[in-house]
Amino acid sequence: MSLNEGVKNNKRTIAKAITTIENGGSEALTLLKQIYPKTGTAHLIGITGPPGVGKSTLIDALIGQIRKNGLKVGVLAIDPSSPFSGGAILGDRIRMQAHTLDNGVFIRSMANRGHFGGIALAAYDAIRVLEAFDYDIIIIETVGVGQSELAIAQMADTTILALMPGSGDDIQAIKSGIMEIGDIFVINKGDLPGANKAASNIIHSLDLIQEKADWTPPVLISIAQEGIGIEELWQAIGEHFKFLKSSGKLEQRRKHRIKSELAELVAAKVRQSALDFIDNSSNANELVNDVWLHKTDPHLAAEKLIKSIV
Amino acid sequence: MSLNEGVKNNKRTIAKAITTIENGGSEALTLLKQIYPKTGTAHLIGITGPPGVGKSTLIDALIGQIRKNGLKVGVLAIDPSSPFSGGAILGDRIRMQAHTLDNGVFIRSMANRGHFGGIALAAYDAIRVLEAFDYDIIIIETVGVGQSELAIAQMADTTILALMPGSGDDIQAIKSGIMEIGDIFVINKGDLPGANKAASNIIHSLDLIQEKADWTPPVLISIAQEGIGIEELWQAIGEHFKFLKSSGKLEQRRKHRIKSELAELVAAKVRQSALDFIDNSSNANELVNDVWLHKTDPHLAAEKLIKSIV
Repeated sequence: MSLNEGVKNNKRTIAKAITTIENGGSEALTLLKQIYPKTGTAHLIGITGPPGVGKSTLIDALIGQIRKNGLKVGVLAIDPSSPFSGGAILGDRIRMQAHTLDNGVFIRSMANRGHFGGIALAAYDAIRVLEAFDYDIIIIETVGVGQSELAIAQMADTTILALMPGSGDDIQAIKSGIMEIGDIFVINKGDLPGANKAASNIIHSLDLIQEKADWTPPVLISIAQEGIGIEELWQAIGEHFKFLKSSGKLEQRRKHRIKSELAELVAAKVRQSALDFIDNSSNANELVNDVWLHKTDPHLAAEKLIKSIV
Repeated sequence: MSLNEGVKNNKRTIAKAITTIENGGSEALTLLKQIYPKTGTAHLIGITGPPGVGKSTLIDALIGQIRKNGLKVGVLAIDPSSPFSGGAILGDRIRMQAHTLDNGVFIRSMANRGHFGGIALAAYDAIRVLEAFDYDIIIIETVGVGQSELAIAQMADTTILALMPGSGDDIQAIKSGIMEIGDIFVINKGDLPGANKAASNIIHSLDLIQEKADWTPPVLISIAQEGIGIEELWQAIGEHFKFLKSSGKLEQRRKHRIKSELAELVAAKVRQSALDFIDNSSNANELVNDVWLHKTDPHLAAEKLIKSIV
């Protein structure tokens, strides 16, 4: 078997495992049970920010930096799957080509056609597959669309908020309170006018919201296209991970994430039970009919339904 | 009391009721129980499509048309609340001003900072408040961001998919399979080049996916800015509603919606119970710890959790 085939086979195994998980069912559960003891080993890095700031280029440069350090890196691109997102996240396919022969890089786009909780749960498990295959760093990429940003902040150990100069993004980020999710800020396209201004706006507003002085988010300027600022970013990522471990925040964040995941898993299981029950029980059918006829309100009906399915 | 004050007071009552519902708790449940028998009376119209097609202008023109027919209209703008959405949906504030003194128009933006299921549930209930206040038509507006489009299609009786010429939106919509949610298609900005081409692309692709020949979605061209095509749109909306009623599809769609809402309500209630239980039970805390230590995998832990909370 040539090197080329070896790489392909390995990636195919990982891709197949992630697909198994996305499909759910007992096969997924068996696989997850088997790999779970080997997981929790990677540093999870979330990268988010508005479209157009060059997240794909930034991640591409970061991949190069990580490989130079001899570490394996996985990228999960969380795609909110708007039919109109205009390929904002399709960049991963282009990046993919450059790394086709490198077994140390695995890139996967996770599309979301159903319930938002669903993609988060699938991502948690995809992370575990990559950890089981010894990936050291896992980058979770989202486009900036509300829910995703919050979900990513909950999923990652270190969240990078990428912005660009002159777009007003810095002001919008400050106004919206999204600042609080950033552990590291990067002003990419730093050769555009206004980069220093954007950075100082962010530094100033961080001063204002900073109650916890235990970690001051660094605000970096990069030109990812030319590889400028990437080494500094990688260093900041490492420093944040060290801080998380030494301060006990890593355990705290990850336990918080486990809580959210458990609650979401419980909700997903019960949602499915409710749908199955409605489809298969004449009592439940009557309940739906009563709501339709406005005899019972939905909240009361839901209470009754909970009692029936559990 | 002047007319002006009368209008203001009425709108304030509705706004307060919606806020009560958004806040949840027993006050919300009491209110909903009280109004539920009076609901189910409005025609729910969903309007979705990519940013830039002029949805706000289209809705504004439609409001004028509806008022000309002597009907009351409510607009719920579902905002996925990206800090970077760049005011795409803030148009409602501008429209709001023009209708400030008209009690027959109520516009509300519903922001989403938490779980996506949450905003859908709040929207279902806000619709009910408007119905209780005798609004005949309720327009649900979303920006095109994946989950929203699917949710809106589930919520509305009639879904309008708005596109524009020359943007490639028609091709993307066709490719993505989003076509299936449209009961009516509108090519807005019809004075731009390529409007007829976009319309015929859509008509052609509808021919291909159309198994059910009971309703052929009309494909209209409008220039909302100049009020062109709005009467035709309003007529198509009325015809679709008539079709829904005479074919039995209205009952079918609304029952399907009730099922989804019940399952989502059950999921939301159980999710909250799970979070409360984890925070207050030492057993659950141990469970989280076991997952953190990789002794138990999350899926097994969730199974245990379900048994404890129900």
